[in-house]
Amino acid sequence: MKRILTVLAASLLLAGAASAQELANFNRGQQVVSPQVYEDGSVAFRLAADYATVVSLTGNWMAQGESPIPMKKGEGGVWEVIVPALEPEIYTYNFIVDGVAVNDPVNFKVQRDGTRFLNMVFVPGARSAVYNEAKHRGTLTTMWYDSALLGINRRMVVYTPYGYDNPRNKRVKYPVLYLLHGGGGDEEAWTSMGRAAEIMDNLIEQGKAVPMIVVMPNGNPNQQAAPTLGIETTNINFRDPAYANAYVKSLVTEIIPFVESHFRAINKPASRAISGLSMGGGHTLSASQLYPSVFDYIAPQSISSQDTPEIRAQLRALKKDGYNLYWVGVGKTDFLYEGAQTLDRILTEEGLPHTFFVSEGGHEWKNWRLYLQTFAPLLFK
Amino acid sequence: MKRILTVLAASLLLAGAASAQELANFNRGQQVVSPQVYEDGSVAFRLAADYATVVSLTGNWMAQGESPIPMKKGEGGVWEVIVPALEPEIYTYNFIVDGVAVNDPVNFKVQRDGTRFLNMVFVPGARSAVYNEAKHRGTLTTMWYDSALLGINRRMVVYTPYGYDNPRNKRVKYPVLYLLHGGGGDEEAWTSMGRAAEIMDNLIEQGKAVPMIVVMPNGNPNQQAAPTLGIETTNINFRDPAYANAYVKSLVTEIIPFVESHFRAINKPASRAISGLSMGGGHTLSASQLYPSVFDYIAPQSISSQDTPEIRAQLRALKKDGYNLYWVGVGKTDFLYEGAQTLDRILTEEGLPHTFFVSEGGHEWKNWRLYLQTFAPLLFK
Repeated sequence: MKRILTVLAASLLLAGAASAQELANFNRGQQVVSPQVYEDGSVAFRLAADYATVVSLTGNWMAQGESPIPMKKGEGGVWEVIVPALEPEIYTYNFIVDGVAVNDPVNFKVQRDGTRFLNMVFVPGARSAVYNEAKHRGTLTTMWYDSALLGINRRMVVYTPYGYDNPRNKRVKYPVLYLLHGGGGDEEAWTSMGRAAEIMDNLIEQGKAVPMIVVMPNGNPNQQAAPTLGIETTNINFRDPAYANAYVKSLVTEIIPFVESHFRAINKPASRAISGLSMGGGHTLSASQLYPSVFDYIAPQSISSQDTPEIRAQLRALKKDGYNLYWVGVGKTDFLYEGAQTLDRILTEEGLPHTFFVSEGGHEWKNWRLYLQTFAPLLFK
Repeated sequence: MKRILTVLAASLLLAGAASAQELANFNRGQQVVSPQVYEDGSVAFRLAADYATVVSLTGNWMAQGESPIPMKKGEGGVWEVIVPALEPEIYTYNFIVDGVAVNDPVNFKVQRDGTRFLNMVFVPGARSAVYNEAKHRGTLTTMWYDSALLGINRRMVVYTPYGYDNPRNKRVKYPVLYLLHGGGGDEEAWTSMGRAAEIMDNLIEQGKAVPMIVVMPNGNPNQQAAPTLGIETTNINFRDPAYANAYVKSLVTEIIPFVESHFRAINKPASRAISGLSMGGGHTLSASQLYPSVFDYIAPQSISSQDTPEIRAQLRALKKDGYNLYWVGVGKTDFLYEGAQTLDRILTEEGLPHTFFVSEGGHEWKNWRLYLQTFAPLLFK
């Protein structure tokens, strides 16, 4: 025991001395509390900025184009504003200090939206409970696959549910949801902004959704991976008609076989779902219309459709082939709302049973998170 | 083909409309280029801040305690400073705008060091080439395991080398490096600040290191996962002597069996290596001294040892048990340099063959990245 304590003492000494990993970072923390969420959902935002002239706050609960919220300087040079009660949700925000966008230095909960890093604030409540860490959590795998069609190797993120890794389950196979991001997003969008892992963990733990694999590829055909990796993109010009739908073709003929050979995935249409938001909703439409026999669960989000004879013919082919679920989600103020209504109308006119789920709000993550937690329980049942 | 083009047109429309995922984020990009690395390694840093009074720059190439570098306001309200040639390396930096730490809004390469997000700048050269993305990349898996000893489930990050996922290799087993972070770090420290995945990818691709699994657990026994996840910590008081070395015990008796049952890992001492920096170096010493028969490759970094009869007895036991490599890395200006010399001396006096690798610099990531790329080629050979 004495020996053990001697070694421990040396470890603790180091732990104490090194409260951050590099010395230059020691003792920089500020004593300000921000954000502070009150019981009624109002939130105080604070920033220590004694030498700043003007400090304001901007967040994604605000209407588009709304001016930043002025903050007021108080004691000790701490600027503050209290935002009235927000609905339970995850919000992102940043400060503006003398004209410069600034992250909250005391809030290390950060989400990446495209090329921007935004601070996150969580307002608890029934709707947002599903964003918390569940007790039993799945595994996230970030891996690379070769795409002969796109001429590059590419990164994808794969969620496998709790239990998948357990050696006792090594003969169990799982259905797969292909979950696609929007323009400006990448393979990390759904796990960062979308909280997809936490949503699936909670739904599965509560028995609301069946355990499933969720595959989140990169939907920008010219990218190998998220721009944060700084890898060169391909030289292919994807506006060239020769590459029309190259990405959707790669999804169906390269990504799906890769997933089904590298994971314990059931390789049948009844065990494949596809969903995506905005551009990824476009990919969802394309994939389900160009390859009608591949997916039995189809859930485009925040998406517009044209009404053309070609699309109607594709929908009829899809109807003929059969599917289990066609679920469309869109917000009332989404700039694509009219185009989504077109999709609803032609699905109805062509006799394709479907759900047209209309939420408050617009083209935004709070809706995409809501859609995922709403349709995921309907999959593979 | 016409059908395909119609669907494509709808997709492109959305891609164009949604250059970022949420509308509120559109068109915020600034036209400033920052950082700009010149051929000689000098770097221009720029920030558009027309309304700021004082703007300066701070980076981890600076000496500890050195004052921030003043920036100068130029045309269009863009502040600039050019830092003279830096050695090839990865550096982190941020701006200070009227007293507030600010990330570079046009640089989306960011590393997390503990609870701080820092912008990253890459100065190319021989020493830093190994930080680039390799052509063939391994897989990173973020997963959870149950620790009965610590009373919580906990997160770890596991690197598996290129080829591991290939179904053709499904009978191949791999050796394992357990790679531990320092105080203030967590399970993501080595992949974020440490570039461990890129370093291993490059070393393996170039044939310098054998393909191996790298396991990066969380070394703070009271944490379930990185603080960014905001999960409650355990109530166990790890200063209680009853929990002396609980983490190291968990590493050896819980993490290793978990890894060896969930991955295709060779379960022999000759296929196990352990390394860690600072606090993780303390864990490396403890694990190798308390469990002398578990690891045949031992590589503490930036570490201090005491000279006690107990430690000497443990080292003699380790010598008797046998090992293949004992490699110690430390920087000349590390605050632990003297304690590392103590380790070198008692290893020598007790007759344990070892390498004492002394680098320039101190207790910092550029050294820990250097140590990893230096000792990893020596493992499992």
